[in-house]
Amino acid sequence: MDFTSFAGFICGIILIVSAIISGGNVDNFVSVPGMMIVFGGTLSATFLTFQFKDVMAAMKAAYLVFTHKKQDPNDILATMIQLCDVSRRQGLLELEKVMTRKRFLKKACMLIADGSEEGVIRDSLRTEIDSLKLRHFVVQDVFRKMGLYAPAFGMLGTLIGLVQMLSKLNDPALIGPAMAIALLTTFYGSLLSTMVFLPIAGKLKGRTILQVINLEIMFEGAISILKNNNPVVVYEKLSSFIPARNRRPLDEMREE
Amino acid sequence: MDFTSFAGFICGIILIVSAIISGGNVDNFVSVPGMMIVFGGTLSATFLTFQFKDVMAAMKAAYLVFTHKKQDPNDILATMIQLCDVSRRQGLLELEKVMTRKRFLKKACMLIADGSEEGVIRDSLRTEIDSLKLRHFVVQDVFRKMGLYAPAFGMLGTLIGLVQMLSKLNDPALIGPAMAIALLTTFYGSLLSTMVFLPIAGKLKGRTILQVINLEIMFEGAISILKNNNPVVVYEKLSSFIPARNRRPLDEMREE
Amino acid sequence: MDFTSFAGFICGIILIVSAIISGGNVDNFVSVPGMMIVFGGTLSATFLTFQFKDVMAAMKAAYLVFTHKKQDPNDILATMIQLCDVSRRQGLLELEKVMTRKRFLKKACMLIADGSEEGVIRDSLRTEIDSLKLRHFVVQDVFRKMGLYAPAFGMLGTLIGLVQMLSKLNDPALIGPAMAIALLTTFYGSLLSTMVFLPIAGKLKGRTILQVINLEIMFEGAISILKNNNPVVVYEKLSSFIPARNRRPLDEMREE
Amino acid sequence: MDFTSFAGFICGIILIVSAIISGGNVDNFVSVPGMMIVFGGTLSATFLTFQFKDVMAAMKAAYLVFTHKKQDPNDILATMIQLCDVSRRQGLLELEKVMTRKRFLKKACMLIADGSEEGVIRDSLRTEIDSLKLRHFVVQDVFRKMGLYAPAFGMLGTLIGLVQMLSKLNDPALIGPAMAIALLTTFYGSLLSTMVFLPIAGKLKGRTILQVINLEIMFEGAISILKNNNPVVVYEKLSSFIPARNRRPLDEMREE
Amino acid sequence: MDFTSFAGFICGIILIVSAIISGGNVDNFVSVPGMMIVFGGTLSATFLTFQFKDVMAAMKAAYLVFTHKKQDPNDILATMIQLCDVSRRQGLLELEKVMTRKRFLKKACMLIADGSEEGVIRDSLRTEIDSLKLRHFVVQDVFRKMGLYAPAFGMLGTLIGLVQMLSKLNDPALIGPAMAIALLTTFYGSLLSTMVFLPIAGKLKGRTILQVINLEIMFEGAISILKNNNPVVVYEKLSSFIPARNRRPLDEMREE
Repeated sequence: MDFTSFAGFICGIILIVSAIISGGNVDNFVSVPGMMIVFGGTLSATFLTFQFKDVMAAMKAAYLVFTHKKQDPNDILATMIQLCDVSRRQGLLELEKVMTRKRFLKKACMLIADGSEEGVIRDSLRTEIDSLKLRHFVVQDVFRKMGLYAPAFGMLGTLIGLVQMLSKLNDPALIGPAMAIALLTTFYGSLLSTMVFLPIAGKLKGRTILQVINLEIMFEGAISILKNNNPVVVYEKLSSFIPARNRRPLDEMREE
Repeated sequence: MDFTSFAGFICGIILIVSAIISGGNVDNFVSVPGMMIVFGGTLSATFLTFQFKDVMAAMKAAYLVFTHKKQDPNDILATMIQLCDVSRRQGLLELEKVMTRKRFLKKACMLIADGSEEGVIRDSLRTEIDSLKLRHFVVQDVFRKMGLYAPAFGMLGTLIGLVQMLSKLNDPALIGPAMAIALLTTFYGSLLSTMVFLPIAGKLKGRTILQVINLEIMFEGAISILKNNNPVVVYEKLSSFIPARNRRPLDEMREE
Repeated sequence: MDFTSFAGFICGIILIVSAIISGGNVDNFVSVPGMMIVFGGTLSATFLTFQFKDVMAAMKAAYLVFTHKKQDPNDILATMIQLCDVSRRQGLLELEKVMTRKRFLKKACMLIADGSEEGVIRDSLRTEIDSLKLRHFVVQDVFRKMGLYAPAFGMLGTLIGLVQMLSKLNDPALIGPAMAIALLTTFYGSLLSTMVFLPIAGKLKGRTILQVINLEIMFEGAISILKNNNPVVVYEKLSSFIPARNRRPLDEMREE
Repeated sequence: MDFTSFAGFICGIILIVSAIISGGNVDNFVSVPGMMIVFGGTLSATFLTFQFKDVMAAMKAAYLVFTHKKQDPNDILATMIQLCDVSRRQGLLELEKVMTRKRFLKKACMLIADGSEEGVIRDSLRTEIDSLKLRHFVVQDVFRKMGLYAPAFGMLGTLIGLVQMLSKLNDPALIGPAMAIALLTTFYGSLLSTMVFLPIAGKLKGRTILQVINLEIMFEGAISILKNNNPVVVYEKLSSFIPARNRRPLDEMREE
Repeated sequence: MDFTSFAGFICGIILIVSAIISGGNVDNFVSVPGMMIVFGGTLSATFLTFQFKDVMAAMKAAYLVFTHKKQDPNDILATMIQLCDVSRRQGLLELEKVMTRKRFLKKACMLIADGSEEGVIRDSLRTEIDSLKLRHFVVQDVFRKMGLYAPAFGMLGTLIGLVQMLSKLNDPALIGPAMAIALLTTFYGSLLSTMVFLPIAGKLKGRTILQVINLEIMFEGAISILKNNNPVVVYEKLSSFIPARNRRPLDEMREE
């Protein structure tokens, strides 16, 4: 579980809720029809914009990004160094036996063990990375668009409220409360966008960056193994993807 | 028929309409001149911005994207594997007999069967893909611009209403209703943009991404056939375009 | 004359004007000082932003895009096929005699007839295309900036009106009309931007796309002629720039 | 002196001022504290955002772009043709004697005369062009950011005024004038942004485009001289950077 | 300490504070709950959007950019020239002994001294530069997003205040002060964004540009040393990264 995100979200909600409570009546901030317009409207526009399976994929990705740990690039690097050692000692065929839950690494090992040409391996793995980037972009886009639709539906709800209020302007004493209700949808829309949709889109973007770095390390590592590079050279090449401060030294990696 | 989109649209409309009805008088939300300004104005600015045939192409594309099924890349992949098998067994000339409604694939087969050089085939097919991207971009742009013009005309309508109301401010009792009518065009403009034009633009963009992936599979497949690659290699290369989870295994494809 | 654009513009204006008239007094919407601020201000900011000759070029381009027909890429393609036939039958020197009002094609023919190296021809023609794109970008930018400045000056005019009105708030009965006049400049600014400047910028962008496609066809055609490619191959290569549906068949082109 | 820009600026100011005067009391539009917030705030945020020397460079660039004439690319082209003639008649060493105030051209001549390899010359000159683009981008960015900060400080000033006014809402008669003063900072911010900062940023961008074209002509010219190209070929290559309509013919250039 | 930034910040604050004081009661501008919503909300959304360590890295970077001096590219250039001299006189192995706190330079020297191939050195150093750019981009993005969230939470606070005020609109005399308090959060949000977050983001971007130029000088220098280029050639190549006006002459550099 991603503790900072959780704490951030809880703190934000507490701040907003305490500001509401401190002003007195909490009921003034609850409007079920308003919530339905903003949340339902945003969802319906999202389903209109994207395919059903893209929206589902986005929901799943949002769940995973907050509950699953990210992969440390140092671990990937260590794996690649070990595979390099193995392939130099026991031959490239040995890579076929590699057990890993990372599909990309599995495919890379299979391709090398099958004796594919470098060009084919390069093209195939590069396409995998590009396709992943494209899929992740769509998933982020779902939340970015939701962050755009939510305030728009908030404004639509407020306009509906204003038109209704202004059409029957007989009792001035009622203007205030009617206006307050009308403004609520704008409030819901902005809150959803700022506290939920845009941060999730940002988080997913950050996770994609990390994942692509990991894939790039595997990609460059696979090419190096194929070229029968020395583990020291492989380490020099691949460690460049990791900030100098965080790099685990080569010796530590080979001992693992 | 694209069920999710349809359901999304209907739900959105129901939400908005029920919010309007719950507030009492529905008549307050109907203003034929207001609709004419927003819808007519948006259309006229769109025809000023684009060529007639681009607008028509956009309308047609919007109709197709909601009624036609998208092509599964696995099917394209299977076709390419089969063509690869055919060409290896019976020679490249056999590709001339390929019957397909996909113009791109037909052209690729013709070029290969005619014995064109790899450079010519590459250039020609790459240009086809780039031209398709460009045409699709224009089509999406039509709806993106409509999503921009609709709120602008909504605001223009509201400004007209405000100026008219403020010019004859003799009876304060009439301010409310006049203001309500003035706000209606803003409401129409935002609704059209958020519920219709922007989602369609997004849907078209998503469809273009899928279509380009399919064309890329055909492109890479055609080049592989030309180079007389082994179907296993072709499968490794082309399946990279499809998310690992959705890939149909090679055996299944060859049996079809 | 571009009929659709003309019709679009007229319809838009009729819609706006009839909305104004239906509200009663048209005089309320006429404010010469307001028009001067918005239109004059936009022009002066435009002349500050761009060079005099760029603004003039933009005005000329806007005039041409609505009055001149665009070139059908099929015609360009047919010309290139004919030149290809000529050069194969009568030699490259024959291209020197080509009469055409298209400077780009003339230059291409001259360079080939002069026996220039492929590298020089490529560089020279590619630079021509890039320079044209850059010049067209500046021209579009003039209208895009005007579409930005017009609403800004509209808002400035409204602010001036508001400050003047608020400073002498002695007679509440005058607030309405004064406010109406103040809002007029916002109305003018938005109208100019949405109905004139932004559509023209969009139209110019569309025309540039078409023109660049035509130049690319000439470019690829010239290179093919130089390499002494067969007209059938040239047709395969060049026709990829044109949507499959609109392509004129090769036979028809050679008969012309 | 750039006459059009000057005229544009004066006209814009006259329009705004006459609109203010026509409304009566000019004093209503003068608020020294308001000017200080907007102008001072914009400056202080700019100094926070950029380095001192970047801001100074931006001011100097803005001064130069309005007072210095731009270089005609035809003159640069003529110079390159002449250098080409010289180097063919008298040898590359002769280029060492070239006297020019253009540092880029001087460096190019020095590198050629020193007998540097083509790779070194290419890398070195290309880096010069890229560095210039980067520096110019920063300079434009200073004004673009100022055009963003000015309205933001205008809004901050208005918020301060509104809060002050609303806190002591005892005398309704004073609301109008207090509101008028509060709005003044919004007016100043928008005016500065629309009439000063954004146009200067645009002008600088246009000048950069011109300057880069001139450098590209020198770059391509230097490479052509190094390759001992014929002046006619050099003319064909370099003239592509200049719109066909404005090109000076080769003969005229060599006679100069 | 970065004096200009400090002065800019102090001046900006003085301007705002004096504008507040001049209007009378300073208390009207202090609202602890308002500050908590804006500042706390912004922080919590930031922690939701980014990883904890990215936010910390951003804070650290913001501290360093204002307290640490930037590196003069002339010094880097001088170092590279000296290393070039050393390596030519004493051999590439000598580079192993280079003492420097710049990790990038150290790595470059190590790779050269180890006798790595040019390809490996290029790939490794290029990846280092690209990774640094990516990390810096994330760091800037933290402040850019904060500059976006702050006004959004300002608006949320104002909406909460408005809804509370409008719900109990019994005493018109209290509207003004309640509205004033509601507007305060908008004021805080805009102030934080315009005076703190956006300028810091801009400053970090400027510093990244400088740092990348320094790394590029080291990169090109290392490649030149490897190719055993003459110091004069190295100077010609590397000095192109520095504006001509600021370049230190070669002689001065070698004497150091």
